[in-house]
Amino acid sequence: MRKRAFLLVIFITIVLLTAMAYAQDPLPSWNAGPAKQAIIEFVKATTDTASPKFVPSEARIATFDQDGTTWVEQPMYTQLMYCLERVPAVVKAKPELKNVEPFKTVLSGNREAMAKFTMKDLEKILVATLTGMTVEQFNAEVKEWLVAARHPRWKRPYTELVYQPMLEVMQYFRANGYKTYFVTGGGQDFVRAYSERVYGIPPEQVVGSAGATQFSYDKNGKPVLTKVAKLLLNDDKAGKPEGIYLFIGRRPVAAFGNSIGDKQMLEYTQAGDGARLMVLVHHDDADREYAYGPKSKIGTFTDALMAQAKQKGWVVVSIKNDWNRIFAFEK
Amino acid sequence: MRKRAFLLVIFITIVLLTAMAYAQDPLPSWNAGPAKQAIIEFVKATTDTASPKFVPSEARIATFDQDGTTWVEQPMYTQLMYCLERVPAVVKAKPELKNVEPFKTVLSGNREAMAKFTMKDLEKILVATLTGMTVEQFNAEVKEWLVAARHPRWKRPYTELVYQPMLEVMQYFRANGYKTYFVTGGGQDFVRAYSERVYGIPPEQVVGSAGATQFSYDKNGKPVLTKVAKLLLNDDKAGKPEGIYLFIGRRPVAAFGNSIGDKQMLEYTQAGDGARLMVLVHHDDADREYAYGPKSKIGTFTDALMAQAKQKGWVVVSIKNDWNRIFAFEK
Repeated sequence: MRKRAFLLVIFITIVLLTAMAYAQDPLPSWNAGPAKQAIIEFVKATTDTASPKFVPSEARIATFDQDGTTWVEQPMYTQLMYCLERVPAVVKAKPELKNVEPFKTVLSGNREAMAKFTMKDLEKILVATLTGMTVEQFNAEVKEWLVAARHPRWKRPYTELVYQPMLEVMQYFRANGYKTYFVTGGGQDFVRAYSERVYGIPPEQVVGSAGATQFSYDKNGKPVLTKVAKLLLNDDKAGKPEGIYLFIGRRPVAAFGNSIGDKQMLEYTQAGDGARLMVLVHHDDADREYAYGPKSKIGTFTDALMAQAKQKGWVVVSIKNDWNRIFAFEK
Repeated sequence: MRKRAFLLVIFITIVLLTAMAYAQDPLPSWNAGPAKQAIIEFVKATTDTASPKFVPSEARIATFDQDGTTWVEQPMYTQLMYCLERVPAVVKAKPELKNVEPFKTVLSGNREAMAKFTMKDLEKILVATLTGMTVEQFNAEVKEWLVAARHPRWKRPYTELVYQPMLEVMQYFRANGYKTYFVTGGGQDFVRAYSERVYGIPPEQVVGSAGATQFSYDKNGKPVLTKVAKLLLNDDKAGKPEGIYLFIGRRPVAAFGNSIGDKQMLEYTQAGDGARLMVLVHHDDADREYAYGPKSKIGTFTDALMAQAKQKGWVVVSIKNDWNRIFAFEK
């Protein structure tokens, strides 16, 4: 035990030294400015026992939207890209779908026609690509796709199109005793397939749009869970605070989003007592990433949302001005 | 920083000394025997990096049923007792229910008549007492009741009727890097109201039967979540592995239950690779607690379940023989 205690002391010393170096600037990809300052002041105040804003460790919950908040959501949600690119494999397994819409159009590769898909078309594609398999099969399919797929603009895996400044924020929060959660409109299972590796967020801290599974036994009598087409949680807009209550059971003290889909989560976060931090990422950098606002089909950051952010004291992050680096592969 | 490092070393030393004392017997309320031995051997093997059964820390998930596994479930589930005892307050707020069944019978206090309630009657009582209020109101109502309510046999608060040997198991698992979860047929919100204080299990690690909430704004414009009568998860039998996948997203390596409602959870746990521990608590001590089996209405430990446990190598805990103390207030 003495040797172990000694090793532990060495380990603690290393951790402390690392922490001291790190403490110089926990957010190196952020430019100095009100956004960076607000984030750092919030973390310092809520972890300082002498501060009136101190938050006990068990209540340190920070929630993050994913698409458009921690990774690129243009030109299309990554999961939607996954579903479209999975269609050939689905049709191979079920050739009777080959000449059936909307699968026929997806196979044709006609992007203009695909852009006209109705919600019902999309639903058929989601059901065909996200349900009917065991949860292990689905997990393996997502992982396989993530290795092979490339973003059309950067020609890199989607998991490299993660915002380095937001990774730093997540790490900074965790280093200060916060539990970081995803609260995403994306599929819970989909995000869980990579969240631990890419973001350091374990599966049990991913709240997302969730479908039901069905327990049964396979032909060898082994218990299996199969994904079925029954939506339990649509984790968007009002569904976000509802999902937070369902999965976490505590109100976050900090929440990060980028669109009208995150509005209710930020309102719910702000409605609690004590210190609060609400942050919206604003995509205003067409050169380095994308610039989109009210007229974008997805990830809408409306004028009304901007007005609400100003009125309520939410932090608005300008990608153009606040981030000196967007992706880890830059520089 | 030097002073902080010094304090940390002192702290670590205290933790190590405590751990050494604790290591003598982590389960003092358990008699020596195959059940205690199986639990200790499992924890030792799965946390020893030199063991072929080693489980990395992130995968150390242990799930516990609650009613009949970690606290008394006789003569009635505690939550059902809560719902019945809440009826007068509900009728006071809605006097029109006074002469309506099943509320009329509950108010009469006629236990024989209540014992004949149909599922539909019970459902009406659950809806009236568990929905329609904000989540904060519900939490406050449960906490208030827990302070005042007494178990008919022991005349003590229900939260004192927790099995000391199971508290020791939970603490032992956590001290060895396991995350302990409830996976209960009881209401998720109900259990969350006391699980952290009573069991050391935080709300985000309580998986239970879960109803939906609805996000809206109160008359002051403040966001509120209201409990509504829509069941999202019936966390019993097949619902337990389904709930584990939905909320945790990982397969447990250890699972504890006491009835046919836990069978699928134990099967699902066992179906994973590597080290596995499946435990069933058997209520066979009518003097100190209760003895009930196939003929009991609740908490059924059927002959078929016992046969399956033996065939599959599940650990069966005899309360009579394996526990030298049942409740913390004894001795």
